[in-house]
Amino acid sequence: MSGDSFGRIFKVTTFGESHGPGLGGVVEGCPAGIFLDEGTIQKEMDMRKPGQGLTSTRRRESDRVKILSGVFEGKTTGTAIGFYIPNEDQRSRDYSSIMSIYRPGHGDITYDAKYGFRDYRGGGRSSGRETASRVAAGAIAQAFLEKMGMSVLAYTIELGGVRAGFKSRDEIFNNYFACPDPDVVPVWEDLVKECRNQGDSLGGVVEIAAHGVPAGLGEPVFDKLDARLACALMGVGAVKGVEIGRGFDAARLRGSENNDCLTKDGFVTNNSGGILAGISSGQPVIARAAVKPIPSIAKTQKTITSQGLETEISIGGRHDISAIPRIVPVLKSMFMLVLADMYLLHRSRKDIFIRPVS
Amino acid sequence: MSGDSFGRIFKVTTFGESHGPGLGGVVEGCPAGIFLDEGTIQKEMDMRKPGQGLTSTRRRESDRVKILSGVFEGKTTGTAIGFYIPNEDQRSRDYSSIMSIYRPGHGDITYDAKYGFRDYRGGGRSSGRETASRVAAGAIAQAFLEKMGMSVLAYTIELGGVRAGFKSRDEIFNNYFACPDPDVVPVWEDLVKECRNQGDSLGGVVEIAAHGVPAGLGEPVFDKLDARLACALMGVGAVKGVEIGRGFDAARLRGSENNDCLTKDGFVTNNSGGILAGISSGQPVIARAAVKPIPSIAKTQKTITSQGLETEISIGGRHDISAIPRIVPVLKSMFMLVLADMYLLHRSRKDIFIRPVS
Amino acid sequence: MSGDSFGRIFKVTTFGESHGPGLGGVVEGCPAGIFLDEGTIQKEMDMRKPGQGLTSTRRRESDRVKILSGVFEGKTTGTAIGFYIPNEDQRSRDYSSIMSIYRPGHGDITYDAKYGFRDYRGGGRSSGRETASRVAAGAIAQAFLEKMGMSVLAYTIELGGVRAGFKSRDEIFNNYFACPDPDVVPVWEDLVKECRNQGDSLGGVVEIAAHGVPAGLGEPVFDKLDARLACALMGVGAVKGVEIGRGFDAARLRGSENNDCLTKDGFVTNNSGGILAGISSGQPVIARAAVKPIPSIAKTQKTITSQGLETEISIGGRHDISAIPRIVPVLKSMFMLVLADMYLLHRSRKDIFIRPVS
Amino acid sequence: MSGDSFGRIFKVTTFGESHGPGLGGVVEGCPAGIFLDEGTIQKEMDMRKPGQGLTSTRRRESDRVKILSGVFEGKTTGTAIGFYIPNEDQRSRDYSSIMSIYRPGHGDITYDAKYGFRDYRGGGRSSGRETASRVAAGAIAQAFLEKMGMSVLAYTIELGGVRAGFKSRDEIFNNYFACPDPDVVPVWEDLVKECRNQGDSLGGVVEIAAHGVPAGLGEPVFDKLDARLACALMGVGAVKGVEIGRGFDAARLRGSENNDCLTKDGFVTNNSGGILAGISSGQPVIARAAVKPIPSIAKTQKTITSQGLETEISIGGRHDISAIPRIVPVLKSMFMLVLADMYLLHRSRKDIFIRPVS
Repeated sequence: MSGDSFGRIFKVTTFGESHGPGLGGVVEGCPAGIFLDEGTIQKEMDMRKPGQGLTSTRRRESDRVKILSGVFEGKTTGTAIGFYIPNEDQRSRDYSSIMSIYRPGHGDITYDAKYGFRDYRGGGRSSGRETASRVAAGAIAQAFLEKMGMSVLAYTIELGGVRAGFKSRDEIFNNYFACPDPDVVPVWEDLVKECRNQGDSLGGVVEIAAHGVPAGLGEPVFDKLDARLACALMGVGAVKGVEIGRGFDAARLRGSENNDCLTKDGFVTNNSGGILAGISSGQPVIARAAVKPIPSIAKTQKTITSQGLETEISIGGRHDISAIPRIVPVLKSMFMLVLADMYLLHRSRKDIFIRPVS
Repeated sequence: MSGDSFGRIFKVTTFGESHGPGLGGVVEGCPAGIFLDEGTIQKEMDMRKPGQGLTSTRRRESDRVKILSGVFEGKTTGTAIGFYIPNEDQRSRDYSSIMSIYRPGHGDITYDAKYGFRDYRGGGRSSGRETASRVAAGAIAQAFLEKMGMSVLAYTIELGGVRAGFKSRDEIFNNYFACPDPDVVPVWEDLVKECRNQGDSLGGVVEIAAHGVPAGLGEPVFDKLDARLACALMGVGAVKGVEIGRGFDAARLRGSENNDCLTKDGFVTNNSGGILAGISSGQPVIARAAVKPIPSIAKTQKTITSQGLETEISIGGRHDISAIPRIVPVLKSMFMLVLADMYLLHRSRKDIFIRPVS
Repeated sequence: MSGDSFGRIFKVTTFGESHGPGLGGVVEGCPAGIFLDEGTIQKEMDMRKPGQGLTSTRRRESDRVKILSGVFEGKTTGTAIGFYIPNEDQRSRDYSSIMSIYRPGHGDITYDAKYGFRDYRGGGRSSGRETASRVAAGAIAQAFLEKMGMSVLAYTIELGGVRAGFKSRDEIFNNYFACPDPDVVPVWEDLVKECRNQGDSLGGVVEIAAHGVPAGLGEPVFDKLDARLACALMGVGAVKGVEIGRGFDAARLRGSENNDCLTKDGFVTNNSGGILAGISSGQPVIARAAVKPIPSIAKTQKTITSQGLETEISIGGRHDISAIPRIVPVLKSMFMLVLADMYLLHRSRKDIFIRPVS
Repeated sequence: MSGDSFGRIFKVTTFGESHGPGLGGVVEGCPAGIFLDEGTIQKEMDMRKPGQGLTSTRRRESDRVKILSGVFEGKTTGTAIGFYIPNEDQRSRDYSSIMSIYRPGHGDITYDAKYGFRDYRGGGRSSGRETASRVAAGAIAQAFLEKMGMSVLAYTIELGGVRAGFKSRDEIFNNYFACPDPDVVPVWEDLVKECRNQGDSLGGVVEIAAHGVPAGLGEPVFDKLDARLACALMGVGAVKGVEIGRGFDAARLRGSENNDCLTKDGFVTNNSGGILAGISSGQPVIARAAVKPIPSIAKTQKTITSQGLETEISIGGRHDISAIPRIVPVLKSMFMLVLADMYLLHRSRKDIFIRPVS
């Protein structure tokens, strides 16, 4: 419970920083008999690796994942799955210029406040690199969920304030924004160029939708499905807001507009985002996360040193322009970890006394 | 972990439904020696009781809380604090007309899907009445937080799409919307009247702000302060969105606009909502929750029975027009439970090896 | 996790002290649809009430349990079950003579050390009265386990160093020692009389045996079935030792003697106590608990006051001679809570991909 | 909570099997600023490696531990500490003769029952090799505890039914039994020789004693210090019994004999094992674990195959004669993990309102 574990039955515990030997984790509670190999996980890992669209990075992170336990002859054994992702590109550098400067928008100052000192070579445990472990764990959850008939899709619906429509599922995999709207892609490309020239960065909104989720997932009153999803998504670095279904828009609707009426064919609308009273309704489960612009920018900013002296900082080099799209598979992974966990938790007590008559 | 507990060290476990004998809970982990009596809790309870502004209810819920353990001679003993709130107004009624109808926007259908049957006399465990226990627990957290120098304020900043400004702290306690903007109060009053005449309901947005929160609260990587707050707030019935600091607006800013720069006097802005990398920064911690309109409305709606037959429903009588303002102390309570818990979790390891030189 | 909760899925949280208004708790995770009423719980409660064989008590504790939530029309709803047991016999007394004296063998001194002060009117949270809540929760677990085909039996196999044989299951319910050996009962009766005359107290050993436990319960490596049972039983006041199967005797056997060989009819012996590698084998699960003599004795003992002054104490009046037999249903309850929890935990992932061919 | 994690604040999560690439784990909650390097951990690891006294093994397990995160410039950072121990000696073998035979006393049959299949090359997750991770985690706990003034000692007090006295602390490190009694060492040596010649194995009893433990550790009512210790020790493979203080002997004493009286110099005796009402008293905390004889023996035993056919098995080769002494550092590690965790849990709320007057 000290913060590096997530989940109750399907549970992941992670470790690792940006500048240590590597990252990894342990997935517990994955049922026995699921087909799993490193390739299955690697496929998801590759979706968050740098060197793509929105980045000017020159970093080489191949992020090769290695399974250390819990899989035998291509199937999960039901016991703990250990995995490891070595850090590469660990060149020795001179950190003296940044070791005592608090980068605005980063956790440098709060880590110092909390722990008394920190690994000044990077974000340490607060680095975005930490999310590699989340994606590896999410890929394991996905292998399980798919067998149970569930699928999860994540995509960008807003970048730098410019909204996209959901026009094509396939389009998501055709552009490096993970954007389902081909018309908005060129607009976003211009935005990225302009922003890069200004030495600035962009935020956006990511939507995650799960299909095939059976009704009944979620535990009243503190472990509702939406509460767990909110925890999962808000805990990803850079996320500052989470919505379920209509989200903040629902606050502006009347009850007669927002309620999802029912006919014998099922729900007429899905304003609830597939969750009623914290429990999945059988409709698609839909959430959105607001992603703040990346704080590391080339533009000069005022800040202080750990000694409280005023200074300025310009973070050049190989940083991304936006956490999007690399955050997309991370958010999808967190969403899947919640689903896998809540599915198993519900399954533990499901249909004990209510059995079909034969 | 089956859903009725919240927190790790400062932890609450609740029970109770709308139509049973009563509600209550157990608060664990509250330090010994805090002054506490039933009056302290009752004061908070009274802020969520019905029969006020936005309601047409004729219900009488005095919600008298009784402390059952954990307090001796006016002080907490450090052991489990049990509390109980009897249900009143439990008249026997004829439920035959509603027992098999799924009310749109309610958990009737999902509870049936999850458990196979449900207490058809009301929302059962999904009833808003469940939040009485949250407020009682929150009041205990508040007694502790105040001693630690922290204070939490919650207020309505939007109703039915009409935004309020934060004009006056005192004004919050002067109107039954818990609104800090005296100018918007008459507008909201008209909105409520109009909505009631239409047999409809309203949603809104509640903001919660904590002052005096020390830097260092929050545990990387899955129990970040913002993740825990999101879980706490989203788990309250009717909440469909949660933001920290600038929230969704941050997704539309550039990095240079969103970053909170530092001078030797501290942070220049507080776009982060007092949380950096999931850890409190010493600034005020600020969150917002989107509250959907109450689903129980007099307007006729299409729905189905538990047998799948189509029907219509009009929910008359004594229902509120909005979860606001009764949800305000509930959200504040959940926020305080998170603070108390994260404070103690951080305190457990704080300053072990970094001690001031004498 | 602050100590008042036990279990993961089938979980109980309790509150209450000896001299407060009452005790109670919350049972989470009990599946929906189990027949349950107050009578079912009361029957188990009555097995731990005082005023029976080994006691000289004049206390009247009827221990009437009241269900406050989670049961509708005689069946569990699947949501939190709240229960309450009012304290009776709360006469106002003069505590000035005992309030600052540390009773030997009691928690007075450790509670003071931990919390800084304590409810001096009795044992507070460390009082044996706390176990009433355990028995109530255990009775709920039992209702569930019986439906799943499991049954648990607890009985005394040793008192004051005199061993009993397991001669008759029925005999357990025929004497107030819960002893399965009619021949030893008169010996124990003499022992009790002698001990009472000396103003002293007795310890003993209780065995708990579960039948019908399916193979597969227990989670490697830290939540093995035996580890959870040890935690459950050792946490009951007065217990100083726990064994599984042959227990300490196994340490004196050779491997060839201790191993349970297998034939096509199953295991030849059950030295393992039905648990191999922490997982139930399908054999009866058997544990034993060593119960220390009750520390409250009439004999004069040396002790100190909370100010560190030396004094003497003789605890007269209405105390039991032994925690046996009242501890028997408490240990049985803890055992059942473990079984219910581990059953559900195992069930959550059982047979997901390995299904019988039709 | 799926079984691979232990602890609440100071918490370890492990992974790894006997025949996979390696083992490891994650330690959370270790305070920042503790001096730690691989050498500190390796020293403890070396105490459980094979190729010593009671073994006929030819296995080469150097068990080199590698720290993967959470340590910077020789000090813990306060964040998750990942560690890894590669498996060596993974020669490819022919497992066809053993893959379907259930070894008596092993978890082969229960793992098959639980998971539907298993890694037939060894004990998988139930292998004693799993304990390497426990020792690594325990070594980290030890680094913390020592700074807090606590020290823990573990030693063998019984082997094959032959009891040792506690004659010399230093002697523990002088013989490969970890025996504090030089006189009994030659007797045990003969016992081992005889047992090896018979193709059989031995059990024993290990005692663990902690000095410097402050009063106040342990959380009523389900997370008492003794309950947590019992869980910790019983969860180690081969352990069938756990005692605190006088343990089972206490059940045979009278109250007047078993109570620890107090004078102004403190407790007169320590029958309680340093724990009263589940909370440490400031005296040494003492526990014992009964270790069954190793089930893998050369002697021929009856058993069955996974198809239920009767057969015989003789497990030759490189197995130990007893889990002692290799289990000694494992039990010590589990004990230390409990102490570290309960210390931090207690510290979180300690002395909040009771402050020394200046």
